[in-house]
Amino acid sequence: MVDTSFYQNKGPFTLAQIAQITGSELQDPKASNELISNIDTLEKASSEDICFFYDKKAKDKAAAICSKAVVTTQDLASLIPEGVFVLIHSNPKIAFLKLNQAMYAEYEPSPSISPKASIHPSAKIGQNCFIGDFAVVEENVQIGNNCRIEAGTYIGRSCKIGNHCRIGANAYVAYCLMGDDCYIYTGARIGADGFGFDMIEGKHQRVPQVGRVIIGNDVEIGANTCIDRGALDDTVIGDGCRIDNLAQIAHNDKLGRGCIIVSQTGIAGSCTFGDYVVCGGQTGFADHLKIGSGAQIAAQSGVMRDVESGAVLLGSPAVPFKDFMRQVAFLQKNSKK
Amino acid sequence: MVDTSFYQNKGPFTLAQIAQITGSELQDPKASNELISNIDTLEKASSEDICFFYDKKAKDKAAAICSKAVVTTQDLASLIPEGVFVLIHSNPKIAFLKLNQAMYAEYEPSPSISPKASIHPSAKIGQNCFIGDFAVVEENVQIGNNCRIEAGTYIGRSCKIGNHCRIGANAYVAYCLMGDDCYIYTGARIGADGFGFDMIEGKHQRVPQVGRVIIGNDVEIGANTCIDRGALDDTVIGDGCRIDNLAQIAHNDKLGRGCIIVSQTGIAGSCTFGDYVVCGGQTGFADHLKIGSGAQIAAQSGVMRDVESGAVLLGSPAVPFKDFMRQVAFLQKNSKK
Amino acid sequence: MVDTSFYQNKGPFTLAQIAQITGSELQDPKASNELISNIDTLEKASSEDICFFYDKKAKDKAAAICSKAVVTTQDLASLIPEGVFVLIHSNPKIAFLKLNQAMYAEYEPSPSISPKASIHPSAKIGQNCFIGDFAVVEENVQIGNNCRIEAGTYIGRSCKIGNHCRIGANAYVAYCLMGDDCYIYTGARIGADGFGFDMIEGKHQRVPQVGRVIIGNDVEIGANTCIDRGALDDTVIGDGCRIDNLAQIAHNDKLGRGCIIVSQTGIAGSCTFGDYVVCGGQTGFADHLKIGSGAQIAAQSGVMRDVESGAVLLGSPAVPFKDFMRQVAFLQKNSKK
Repeated sequence: MVDTSFYQNKGPFTLAQIAQITGSELQDPKASNELISNIDTLEKASSEDICFFYDKKAKDKAAAICSKAVVTTQDLASLIPEGVFVLIHSNPKIAFLKLNQAMYAEYEPSPSISPKASIHPSAKIGQNCFIGDFAVVEENVQIGNNCRIEAGTYIGRSCKIGNHCRIGANAYVAYCLMGDDCYIYTGARIGADGFGFDMIEGKHQRVPQVGRVIIGNDVEIGANTCIDRGALDDTVIGDGCRIDNLAQIAHNDKLGRGCIIVSQTGIAGSCTFGDYVVCGGQTGFADHLKIGSGAQIAAQSGVMRDVESGAVLLGSPAVPFKDFMRQVAFLQKNSKK
Repeated sequence: MVDTSFYQNKGPFTLAQIAQITGSELQDPKASNELISNIDTLEKASSEDICFFYDKKAKDKAAAICSKAVVTTQDLASLIPEGVFVLIHSNPKIAFLKLNQAMYAEYEPSPSISPKASIHPSAKIGQNCFIGDFAVVEENVQIGNNCRIEAGTYIGRSCKIGNHCRIGANAYVAYCLMGDDCYIYTGARIGADGFGFDMIEGKHQRVPQVGRVIIGNDVEIGANTCIDRGALDDTVIGDGCRIDNLAQIAHNDKLGRGCIIVSQTGIAGSCTFGDYVVCGGQTGFADHLKIGSGAQIAAQSGVMRDVESGAVLLGSPAVPFKDFMRQVAFLQKNSKK
Repeated sequence: MVDTSFYQNKGPFTLAQIAQITGSELQDPKASNELISNIDTLEKASSEDICFFYDKKAKDKAAAICSKAVVTTQDLASLIPEGVFVLIHSNPKIAFLKLNQAMYAEYEPSPSISPKASIHPSAKIGQNCFIGDFAVVEENVQIGNNCRIEAGTYIGRSCKIGNHCRIGANAYVAYCLMGDDCYIYTGARIGADGFGFDMIEGKHQRVPQVGRVIIGNDVEIGANTCIDRGALDDTVIGDGCRIDNLAQIAHNDKLGRGCIIVSQTGIAGSCTFGDYVVCGGQTGFADHLKIGSGAQIAAQSGVMRDVESGAVLLGSPAVPFKDFMRQVAFLQKNSKK
């Protein structure tokens, strides 16, 4: 049951409403007016709740469902205990997403600019924005409409932020052009200096970093993640990318559209990713690599060479998935002799 | 010697006082009134200091001890040079802890609420709290007694913080219920959105994250560590857990009591840990795993399967400690042929 | 082309000026008065730009250069297309650095102390400092001349900061003595409690951390990196060290001069590094290790033992580079049988 001190519950909804919201079919039309107050997990959902059952590997859990209703597939419906109302959907995950979006909402702050924020007079702030306490918005910043700049966030000189963006508390955004619908999480660091030095006369001399971070539309960047600005060229994050917490994206990296970068991944400088690349957690990439579209790199892999489109790699150094499994099996077998 | 510009030194103490504070026995009762001004390391402790000697592997260092006094075990006492007063304790580490706590203290800020903080009128703040400059405490937050909320910290709407908690500077706490005696370090991010998406019509659509973070009593969470709130269920950190810096705990993870999570460990979503699990640094866990109580996972391991209680694992993929060592030996030997 | 909304462009410069600034020799003296407006990459530099060509592995790219001028070596000069003015330098990387420094500059904030900062009356601030909005400077802090303390940063009680230091936005510095010319990036956490516990009566009891962080001159510490203060002894970062983003340096670690620690590296407590040690990204070190000067530890390595000066290691557990490559080759070959 979702905690209404934290979230709005816009329910209850009737099963008929839920069928419509989710695009499901209610098996028993007589149940149309039954009320559902909450979504809950398979295990916790009780007599006023709805749950979602679609994991074929968890068939044994079906018998214990004691929610009022369940959304499931045609194939799995026969497993649902009697007395539980069944809604059929070809993809219950999508139904879950839709009902979740319809039933719950965070408490959004009302559009307002805190008098405790520090906003340079030359900054241009769009309509319906929220700017929290102790946020700093520097000279010549442009912020679009319907943005939410949370408390304590720093937006550096001349940054451009699109519409419908959210910048989380205590984040840092500098040297950045950002599209629409982006969400930068609390503590993310966008646009700090890249790590560039030349050893000259026995001293690591800093190479000035004079590039930018270009962020597309509909991008999410996780908590405490760091994306360095380009050295001379730009660092680029393509439309629709999803970057998890505590990741490191170095200077001049270029990610295509829709890439998924799981937590604690590190990408050294000047790498170029195609579209829809997926990296598991704690993956590392050497610098100047080209990673083809659709490549999937498993967690903790270490990528030292270019990767072809669609490749599925694992290990450090990363090798094709099957090769890695063969290596693991070989080692397990032979080391026991 | 501890720097008194940073810490209070409540000494000097006589050796008799130190014997009492630590529960040690002073070998030479005539030395009872000798004064000790500082604790220092074995190597640095000099004629006004006390040090602690208990590392059996460092027996060769004993002869060089030149402190005024030393706390050691009965077994090691014979190694201490003449002229150094000896106190005997069955566990000198405990004696060290006790004397350290008695002799030194940080400068605690006086209870006060900074007029430069931003505190919603509906927030309830307990007795004897310190709230620093530019902290933000949102609507309906409840904070217990004797808490210390440091500068620039953000406490989101409706959070409940127990008694004797410390939230470090520039930290973020949202969607969170926290017990007593917790210490959240500077820059930690508690309660940000989990990383949940479904690919729908070619787009990674965000799954609303409507759970909480439930933190027990006596929990420490390190600097810049991220603990995401639950998706529908909650993320739970059990009593007595110790989480180091830069760790990632994903949505719906549940840690039992007393777990130790060393720096840069990443735990993917929906994992369940028993009690007193220990993870070395940079360890990774795949999602939905069950890790039994007392399991010990060595640094840099990658855990892809459930782990039994008490197991000791190492490697990526993680295997029993002995198997890993055998694999390493096998590889070293055979690759040189 | 560098974006002048973010950076100052102090050009254009004539080729004669550029030859002088960089210490290059202009091949065709008649071109002395030709104007250069920007530096750009080999691929992007066009008819008003200069680029730098020194990568022998990229010889095939030379023919496509269409900038107005190029700095290259004597050896590579013959590859430059006709019509592009050539400047010769024995090390074009150095020439690049020098021209970059001469041509571009960040917009520095003017020296000023924000009335929105919170500065304890006992703090001593040097000449020509900038202190940003919502920065907090505690009791007895000393800050040298020409420092830049950015918005939202916290400087704890009694810290000493040298001259020409920059502390990035929302950073945290406590229990720290810092030399001159240091740059602490946004979100870095310097001086938080080390991770030290003893299990006493079934409870992880915190060992008070009463040491400091001693930072030399000319040190850089990356975004969201954590450097814990010493437990009893100090944590020490030597002159000229370069630490990238999201690294973890634990209590009592001591780094010599000029070490390079790439992103997401974790060093457990009480390690001692010599001078000019280089660690690739995501490397891990067990506690209490001695790492000799000049050692190079490749990315993702796990170091479990002391390392000799000059060693080049790779792998987890880390082994000499050649051994690792042999192991990889052995596994690849034999697992396919």
